[in-house]
Amino acid sequence: MRQFNVAVVGATGAVGQEILKVLEERNFPVRELRPLATARSAGRVVYFKGGAYTVEETRPESFEGVEIALFAGGAASKEFALAAKERGALVIDNSSAFRLEPDVPLVVPEVNPEDVKWHKGIIANPNCSTIIMVVPLKPIYDAAGIKRVVVSTYQAVSGAGAAAIKELEAQTRAVLSGQEYPPQVFPYQIAFNLIPHIDVFQELDYTKEEWKMVKETRKIFHDDSLSITATTVRVPVIRCHSESVNVETKEKLTAKEAREILSRAPGVVVVDDPAAKKYPMPILAYDKDEVFVGRIRDDNSLDKGLNLWVVADQLRKGAATNAVQIAELAIKYSCVK
Amino acid sequence: MRQFNVAVVGATGAVGQEILKVLEERNFPVRELRPLATARSAGRVVYFKGGAYTVEETRPESFEGVEIALFAGGAASKEFALAAKERGALVIDNSSAFRLEPDVPLVVPEVNPEDVKWHKGIIANPNCSTIIMVVPLKPIYDAAGIKRVVVSTYQAVSGAGAAAIKELEAQTRAVLSGQEYPPQVFPYQIAFNLIPHIDVFQELDYTKEEWKMVKETRKIFHDDSLSITATTVRVPVIRCHSESVNVETKEKLTAKEAREILSRAPGVVVVDDPAAKKYPMPILAYDKDEVFVGRIRDDNSLDKGLNLWVVADQLRKGAATNAVQIAELAIKYSCVK
Repeated sequence: MRQFNVAVVGATGAVGQEILKVLEERNFPVRELRPLATARSAGRVVYFKGGAYTVEETRPESFEGVEIALFAGGAASKEFALAAKERGALVIDNSSAFRLEPDVPLVVPEVNPEDVKWHKGIIANPNCSTIIMVVPLKPIYDAAGIKRVVVSTYQAVSGAGAAAIKELEAQTRAVLSGQEYPPQVFPYQIAFNLIPHIDVFQELDYTKEEWKMVKETRKIFHDDSLSITATTVRVPVIRCHSESVNVETKEKLTAKEAREILSRAPGVVVVDDPAAKKYPMPILAYDKDEVFVGRIRDDNSLDKGLNLWVVADQLRKGAATNAVQIAELAIKYSCVK
Repeated sequence: MRQFNVAVVGATGAVGQEILKVLEERNFPVRELRPLATARSAGRVVYFKGGAYTVEETRPESFEGVEIALFAGGAASKEFALAAKERGALVIDNSSAFRLEPDVPLVVPEVNPEDVKWHKGIIANPNCSTIIMVVPLKPIYDAAGIKRVVVSTYQAVSGAGAAAIKELEAQTRAVLSGQEYPPQVFPYQIAFNLIPHIDVFQELDYTKEEWKMVKETRKIFHDDSLSITATTVRVPVIRCHSESVNVETKEKLTAKEAREILSRAPGVVVVDDPAAKKYPMPILAYDKDEVFVGRIRDDNSLDKGLNLWVVADQLRKGAATNAVQIAELAIKYSCVK
């Protein structure tokens, strides 16, 4: 079986660390691993399959001989993705830099796997909140069509990186001791608080995070008629995102039918037994690859509607796992140079 | 000016303590204060206007001579509200026991003050999440009509009482130290977690909390045609509730118009300046009486729709303040015996 030279860009960050774990767990066919990061993190050591690797600073030449380059996100993508692509690597990019480019596929393997085939050197990994929402929306879309989605998110701090996790923990300790801990990663205190502001504000006073959920979902479904409105909120949770999703379908789909369809859907685990107090929660999704769906209800306010409560590990399916799954698909479809 | 003998039932709990504070702050015309609680809390001391009061066990006779009885909520209402009423007290009840009774007004002073007038001895205080939502919905309802509301809540632990606040704090300390802290008040760990389950499950797998937001809102607005669907979620926040509210209006109302209308609305404070990172958050609403509204946006998925982000102190406007405001209205309308 063919093996690949794999670069992980941002290998010391929250997503990069998770990519290394996922590559190892899934026994990804790695011939040579090249962990890369900013100058600040170069020299640090990361671990993969029992071996210790010294992280090198990312430079254009770092991608010589690399066949698959997994970019964890952030500024490195704009700076180095084209350099990696020019050197023949298939770039799988977790940043938002290329997601809406017409010549870049945006892929969630459970939803639009075939889009991997037409890549031109870069495949984009969607925003974490988008991935987590579209996995359960797909079987509903196929069964009944979707007219409109109203989504409110409850996003963990991990979405803002490893420093954000440290900030939540340290700030929570401080608040419990009656001490000050000025925010550095977030605009305000996140301990015991909520911040209805993720990424920058854009048109109509929606944040970029909110527009991502609209625009990326349309691209993944190849359906510009999909109506989606989003409110995205940071919550004091460490690493799993949750979403309250209201779906207006084109055809009637009962909660019972939706539960059955979702139970058979790839990448979805239905946890929905109110009598037994079973529903998805961040503490249950931690370190899991699936998207957990529960609180599946007929919308009492609408003839053709459903309410869902969706939870998934933002660092796994929301980032690292989805990226590695894309790489696996590219190998399966023989579209790695 | 007439003064009143006032009983506070549940005076040692989270809401009861807040009622005492609000009575004092608003200089409520108290002649004699009678703090009551369960046998377990009897004998404890509470403070009011510099005086120390020993809490007595609630009994039917406790209400002899009482003119206004503020019930903080819980089981005491079903047990003693009728006894208080029979003795001539005006009962203002924060429990869910009487809210949907046809002969009991359910009042939010900014929305339906006149309903106080037809009370028959009991006036119900709505559920906290309902109060916080209807205060900003009222001016929108009056200006443009409301067809449908999709609401997702982010509810603080204070809604589950003083023991719940202690549980969040102690459990958070334990989790940060890698220790176990089995849940007692909540069905699962709430520290760094979310629980999409508040109150018991009822028809269509909605919780009672979710149905309260539907049924109480219709009663307060005297409009059974109002379509509302709710998903209620407990979050690790100490005492302010937040809500992501999507409103479909009957007539077009732009975000700009909504912002202007809400700025003039009683009990509402608009905090909505994205460029300056101004939006409502739990830490800003703490100990305040107003409902804070921000992230006011035209719904990008609908011709006539708005998104709002609403935050208020659950123990203040969500409970104690609203109850005391009802008592003030009853005095103003001369409908206290």
